[in-house]
Amino acid sequence: MKRVPMKQERSQVTRDRLMRAAGEVFARAGYEAATLAEIAKRAGVTTGALYFTFEGKEDLAACLIEREAEIAYAAAQDALSRPGEALESMVRLSLDWANLIMTDPVVAAGVRLILECPDLLKEISMPYTHWVSTTEELLRRAQANGELSIPIDTSNIAFIFTSAFVGVDLLSGAVNAREQFITRLHVMWRILLFGVTDQTKAPRAVNLLATVAGST
Amino acid sequence: MKRVPMKQERSQVTRDRLMRAAGEVFARAGYEAATLAEIAKRAGVTTGALYFTFEGKEDLAACLIEREAEIAYAAAQDALSRPGEALESMVRLSLDWANLIMTDPVVAAGVRLILECPDLLKEISMPYTHWVSTTEELLRRAQANGELSIPIDTSNIAFIFTSAFVGVDLLSGAVNAREQFITRLHVMWRILLFGVTDQTKAPRAVNLLATVAGST
Repeated sequence: MKRVPMKQERSQVTRDRLMRAAGEVFARAGYEAATLAEIAKRAGVTTGALYFTFEGKEDLAACLIEREAEIAYAAAQDALSRPGEALESMVRLSLDWANLIMTDPVVAAGVRLILECPDLLKEISMPYTHWVSTTEELLRRAQANGELSIPIDTSNIAFIFTSAFVGVDLLSGAVNAREQFITRLHVMWRILLFGVTDQTKAPRAVNLLATVAGST
Repeated sequence: MKRVPMKQERSQVTRDRLMRAAGEVFARAGYEAATLAEIAKRAGVTTGALYFTFEGKEDLAACLIEREAEIAYAAAQDALSRPGEALESMVRLSLDWANLIMTDPVVAAGVRLILECPDLLKEISMPYTHWVSTTEELLRRAQANGELSIPIDTSNIAFIFTSAFVGVDLLSGAVNAREQFITRLHVMWRILLFGVTDQTKAPRAVNLLATVAGST
């Protein structure tokens, strides 16, 4: 006998479908141009059902940003607990996150909405500090391992690395070259890793990028 | 006898005051929260006079972005025609531009609106390609002078350098550390220049940053 879903399960299904549809519409059209009618239609629900689940456009956008932050946090925790080399984990995390930006509409929308609606963030923790602290922790491990050769503290390096990633994401989208995102990130890491490690040793950055690329 | 300004001059004065006031309001409040009433009040004109000069909020924002692009273009041309060393010109241009972002409300608003209202850009040339091509030209000169040691073409390096600057600007504002913007840029250049020049030679990047800092 086919099991009939409980009311609570049904509303969770509706919520998930709306989040996904909203992600697709916000990611493509941006906050201003996105309409609730299109989101409801794409989710296959009525606008009434949408208003039963979310208070409106601002609420939906805020929920997407929050969900994106949760996914980002989980990805970062995963990178921190992964065994192996710190610099490799750092590069891998950035490539994994780039892939999520390109394939998960909730993540793509979150990244776009953070830029377009900074006011929605007021009640949410700051979006980039979390990436900076994850990067800093990985850099600290690399430093403890004697891998950094630059006399700049890891929190400052982490700020620059995170900024560079956000900038590459932004410019790859802005100049309609999203498909080049991953290639750009390889160039970015080549420069950044050469900038903080000892070039006179083996070409560490090149080997590391080859390792990461070879295993994905 | 006191000269009475011509009608055309008067309307240019009104336009300039409105642009400045709009710059201040958009830079602080963002596109969504900014109101035409506040802009008119701050410019000391009636809302009617505002509508006589601009079609509305979107038009004002688009004009600010356009004006910011003109100022950016002039700054870049100035850097390209300045005699002296290419890498030094590149670093100096970034610091000059950072100072304009922090002191000129039209520039500050333009930079913010480009992020918040990407749709307004459709009829305007892309905002970042111009920075990439200026940076590329300066890197080409440095390369011709044998100063780059990395086997990556200058257009790719220029894309990463521009991305890093945009990211540092964004994160410095996003985490309420705008006052640290210039310090962050010094760290950024320390890493980026180490990443593309030969570290076994004199600490080129350090000297260059000291030169730029010492003369401003």
